[in-house]
Amino acid sequence: MKNDFAGSVCRYGRWLLPLGLLTATVAAQEADALTPEKLKEAIDTVQTHANILWTIVAAALVFWMQAGFAMVEAGFTRAKSAGNIMMKNMMDASLGAMIYWLLGFGLMFGATSGFLGTSHFMLAPDNSAADGQWQYTFWMFQVVFAATAATIVSGAMAERTKFVGYLAYSVVISGLIYPIFGHWAWGNLLLTEQSPWLADAGFIDFAGSTVVHSVGGWAALAGAIVIGPRIGKYTKDGRLRPIPGHNLTIAALGVFILFLGWFGFNGGSTTTADGSVSRIIMNTFLAGCAGAIGAMVVSWFRFGKPDIGMTMNGILAGLVGITAPCATTTPLGSILIGLIAGVLVFLSVLFFDKIKVDDPVGAISVHGVCGAWGTLAAALFHEELFAGGDYNLGSQLVTQLIGIVAAFAWTFITAFILFKVIAMTIGLRVTEQEELEGLDLSEHGANSYPDFVSAPSMGGMSIKGE
Amino acid sequence: MKNDFAGSVCRYGRWLLPLGLLTATVAAQEADALTPEKLKEAIDTVQTHANILWTIVAAALVFWMQAGFAMVEAGFTRAKSAGNIMMKNMMDASLGAMIYWLLGFGLMFGATSGFLGTSHFMLAPDNSAADGQWQYTFWMFQVVFAATAATIVSGAMAERTKFVGYLAYSVVISGLIYPIFGHWAWGNLLLTEQSPWLADAGFIDFAGSTVVHSVGGWAALAGAIVIGPRIGKYTKDGRLRPIPGHNLTIAALGVFILFLGWFGFNGGSTTTADGSVSRIIMNTFLAGCAGAIGAMVVSWFRFGKPDIGMTMNGILAGLVGITAPCATTTPLGSILIGLIAGVLVFLSVLFFDKIKVDDPVGAISVHGVCGAWGTLAAALFHEELFAGGDYNLGSQLVTQLIGIVAAFAWTFITAFILFKVIAMTIGLRVTEQEELEGLDLSEHGANSYPDFVSAPSMGGMSIKGE
Amino acid sequence: MKNDFAGSVCRYGRWLLPLGLLTATVAAQEADALTPEKLKEAIDTVQTHANILWTIVAAALVFWMQAGFAMVEAGFTRAKSAGNIMMKNMMDASLGAMIYWLLGFGLMFGATSGFLGTSHFMLAPDNSAADGQWQYTFWMFQVVFAATAATIVSGAMAERTKFVGYLAYSVVISGLIYPIFGHWAWGNLLLTEQSPWLADAGFIDFAGSTVVHSVGGWAALAGAIVIGPRIGKYTKDGRLRPIPGHNLTIAALGVFILFLGWFGFNGGSTTTADGSVSRIIMNTFLAGCAGAIGAMVVSWFRFGKPDIGMTMNGILAGLVGITAPCATTTPLGSILIGLIAGVLVFLSVLFFDKIKVDDPVGAISVHGVCGAWGTLAAALFHEELFAGGDYNLGSQLVTQLIGIVAAFAWTFITAFILFKVIAMTIGLRVTEQEELEGLDLSEHGANSYPDFVSAPSMGGMSIKGE
Repeated sequence: MKNDFAGSVCRYGRWLLPLGLLTATVAAQEADALTPEKLKEAIDTVQTHANILWTIVAAALVFWMQAGFAMVEAGFTRAKSAGNIMMKNMMDASLGAMIYWLLGFGLMFGATSGFLGTSHFMLAPDNSAADGQWQYTFWMFQVVFAATAATIVSGAMAERTKFVGYLAYSVVISGLIYPIFGHWAWGNLLLTEQSPWLADAGFIDFAGSTVVHSVGGWAALAGAIVIGPRIGKYTKDGRLRPIPGHNLTIAALGVFILFLGWFGFNGGSTTTADGSVSRIIMNTFLAGCAGAIGAMVVSWFRFGKPDIGMTMNGILAGLVGITAPCATTTPLGSILIGLIAGVLVFLSVLFFDKIKVDDPVGAISVHGVCGAWGTLAAALFHEELFAGGDYNLGSQLVTQLIGIVAAFAWTFITAFILFKVIAMTIGLRVTEQEELEGLDLSEHGANSYPDFVSAPSMGGMSIKGE
Repeated sequence: MKNDFAGSVCRYGRWLLPLGLLTATVAAQEADALTPEKLKEAIDTVQTHANILWTIVAAALVFWMQAGFAMVEAGFTRAKSAGNIMMKNMMDASLGAMIYWLLGFGLMFGATSGFLGTSHFMLAPDNSAADGQWQYTFWMFQVVFAATAATIVSGAMAERTKFVGYLAYSVVISGLIYPIFGHWAWGNLLLTEQSPWLADAGFIDFAGSTVVHSVGGWAALAGAIVIGPRIGKYTKDGRLRPIPGHNLTIAALGVFILFLGWFGFNGGSTTTADGSVSRIIMNTFLAGCAGAIGAMVVSWFRFGKPDIGMTMNGILAGLVGITAPCATTTPLGSILIGLIAGVLVFLSVLFFDKIKVDDPVGAISVHGVCGAWGTLAAALFHEELFAGGDYNLGSQLVTQLIGIVAAFAWTFITAFILFKVIAMTIGLRVTEQEELEGLDLSEHGANSYPDFVSAPSMGGMSIKGE
Repeated sequence: MKNDFAGSVCRYGRWLLPLGLLTATVAAQEADALTPEKLKEAIDTVQTHANILWTIVAAALVFWMQAGFAMVEAGFTRAKSAGNIMMKNMMDASLGAMIYWLLGFGLMFGATSGFLGTSHFMLAPDNSAADGQWQYTFWMFQVVFAATAATIVSGAMAERTKFVGYLAYSVVISGLIYPIFGHWAWGNLLLTEQSPWLADAGFIDFAGSTVVHSVGGWAALAGAIVIGPRIGKYTKDGRLRPIPGHNLTIAALGVFILFLGWFGFNGGSTTTADGSVSRIIMNTFLAGCAGAIGAMVVSWFRFGKPDIGMTMNGILAGLVGITAPCATTTPLGSILIGLIAGVLVFLSVLFFDKIKVDDPVGAISVHGVCGAWGTLAAALFHEELFAGGDYNLGSQLVTQLIGIVAAFAWTFITAFILFKVIAMTIGLRVTEQEELEGLDLSEHGANSYPDFVSAPSMGGMSIKGE
């Protein structure tokens, strides 16, 4: 019965396999072929299937983060630009996928020239062991990472960016800025025999606190500086006027979506279906929870009430913080990393408002600052710290700092130039009139919520009484 | 330590297995039983477990598409019927599950009579190799496909259909119309030795561009024609009056949900956990992204601004288009298929509005038209096209056309009759008064958003000033 | 090629594995090591990987239910407290994770003292077979169950509970009340050689109809009684004034999220990746669908129209009902269990309103009452009932009743005392003024929807005209 069942599933499944993928099964059915080597090969094949499936499921979870970013950004901003935000989030993934297929993946994971990769464009087969199904699997996982880096910027520039300018930016970060830095740190993940300089230095960034989040965050910083604050965010006499988001429920849904997606983001970065995934996901969960607590408590002390938006950003801060160290720290380490990230994001949001960098969703603080923190934390809370081995905290900290500084320098400078060029050519910012009307109307001729009466604040509150 | 660990998990897991499912492990623990055949059997068992788990996870993702359809439909229509839309989406899955268990699954996958299946009703055991766990797994995957076909129609008939009439339709499509056509194309998937006529002809529809989406789309066309347009959609002098949806944010969330679910829809259609899944999901992703670009660009040219709703439908169009060819085309083929689908859905939406078929969400264009396109594309962009083998484009195109025409003829005619019969008996359309008030109030005594002030447009805008 | 491919994935994957987890592969590559025992060990390792991955994926799905609870609770209540509901749902998971790591997990699954567990606090290694990766995996799955039990109470006490009081409650239920009862029923799941009394008695509660849902539901009952109804819910002359929820669309989304999450909740409770999962998930699906039908039909009869909120709760009722019996009943049994749960939740909601226990979302009925029903149903619809074996319905019913009564007594009494103590110390209920303004403003200084005009009902409707 057991035999029949196992066999039958294979039989029923096989019609679907145009390329005879169940080779192991087929081969083994020739009874005389059941040598130990053949059996071993069949076992490896099943493990390989599991690796591919887990990596693909994780990629699906990371893709799902796009929905989370869209909901968080829309929820934290005003109703009059919600549809524009949906467009930006759909298009940075869509255009990003095209350019990453065409260019970015090859720059990031192709054969290294020292500075960037030079092969594997358009998923070209290379007749190496990295060909075929594994290249497809790995590409799928990496393209959703690229989309994540791109979409982070969207939030910091919300409610005032020209759509066409956003598209231009999106193509360049997914096609050039992100993959080139990515090559330095991760360029050995597909072609494992090569050693880009940052990977070679022993830089720890398991799932991308720096490679994805800081890169996104520093590009967001450049963008927010170049484009300037929203009308009415800072009054003429220098005070801050908070512009509340239009839907905290949907923002919270976005946070839950991101939290779920992060299990794929960090857990899938094994690209292997084995037991190490459990600790990574447990650490991720603990850090996200601790981040919520850290941000809530500090906002409670400072404002007298636990702040909803800050708590949400605390979760994201904890998750960004654990992204680098998730595979190499302990549960207690994860809790501490998350707690500190939660406090840090609170202080950072206040800081950027103080220096009048208007970041409607806190993207610079969550991704840039906490990404840097997580990268440092990967050294500070390394599981081998107290293990008495040959782990050297000082030298690891130096390596981490080099990576953090390199990410900042590369990304901020290139993104700053990019945004300046866009501003001087196709245009980066909508007109004052368009901004006051909202981007839904001016950029898309739409109204995202036509059945509800807008509060007087909706259109022009933020400048009324200036 | 490794041994202990591996063994221990089995030990800890085993208490949960009432039927001794880890037979392989148990058997093998008798050391003398470790013959090559026993080892091979144990390997096959692990692969079978992986196949079942992947298929079930994919089924969960496809189920999740119900939420996506509900959000897209609600977001694209008016607030006054949002609760009714939730009811329809919950009930077509729920009632559909019952009737598919009772009748539909057997008609679709049972022993063929030529025209329809005649066994496996109510998951009856048949003592074949398809029995037990595999039948359960396969049923679970197929029932959520049936629910998808059913729910497509909901959008095209939104805001004016009597709830009881909708329930009646829903039972018939899930129990009869969908499974009978499905039998022709896929009736060999469970009992693989049989050959229904369309499958036998070599029809390529890997995950259901025709079987699921076109069937849903053509039923939607029949429904939209029989029930007629919403009050105020077309003015007396023949002009179109767009009725904007009430929540583009939630519509976009729905699109993201559907995109995620599609990874299960296409990827799970292997019903096998192997490396072929990676290409299928990569192709699915590329086509969805390309669809967004295609629809956005064409709407930008035509309207002067990139249209939000069209871009969302472009994603869905790309996904529907790749559903048939996802396992047999290349990445570049997927991009082209998606791009064309994005353009096509735009033209098709305009066409159906021109001929005054009121489809509030564009379901006919997305699922019917792009389903047909994807089915053709499976021939046109077949990976073997330039491989120089014995692939014959002409004959494959003919086969695909036969399937497309058969799906249209069968579904449109039977669904048209069904809707006419419903209209003449229990009633298909609410009264004018009920439609103007909204279906939430008239059909369910509810108000989906009582805490917000409705815009004057909400109740009667679409006919004001006629 | 096949060989190369399988080998290459291992090679590419290996860099990521700090601990050399692919031991089986490594060992086997020494060709002389391919003894049958080594091969068997390698097979077991792959199955162990699958078990860990499935359990972790299921944990992710259960975590996702937090988003579902948040959306259902917010959707079923008023806009003026939506942000507070988000905070509660984020914080009961976050604080719950901390206390469950510190205390709860050890009390629930540690070495038994008869009454409670006494080891495994803070994920301490114990050098047993349950150590390391399996402990992490199992903890991750269990912590999201604890969060589920905690969050159930939130809904029943919505719109009037002081945030700080809620946090205090949340810590105690996740750290003490839930784990101690859980120990009685499930205390043998990690350390399988021990026998807590309820598990020892043969109590069937596969995934927690009683352990999770009834415990949550009875704590909700205690909380709703101690805190009292919302202002205006019951008029002075004793009539019920329904307070409609502010967003049925988002409530429905929450129901879909919960439905999806339940596949992980029930299916993951195998903690094993094998074929038994398929039946569990099929049964879960059927019962949820049947619950929708049961509640819709009975509401239609009673109210004259199919009620949207009741139908949503019917789905949840069916899912709660099948949680205990999902692994030991048939498809038909699952349908009947769900149908009855759907009817039961309707009657129960009416009953609790009649006795003036104000439960804004129906949590007591869905989780408490239907949890008890599901636990009974595990005996009544046991697959062995008609199998002619030694299954004894009478004695199983007695065992189930003992578990149901024990859960009620333990939870209701301890939670009642807890809420009374909170009320007398830090305070359980906000002031009348704060409640009328909404908790978003009073507890968090926020407005969740500032861009929309509130309906006059939003602030004070429910007491207007009293």
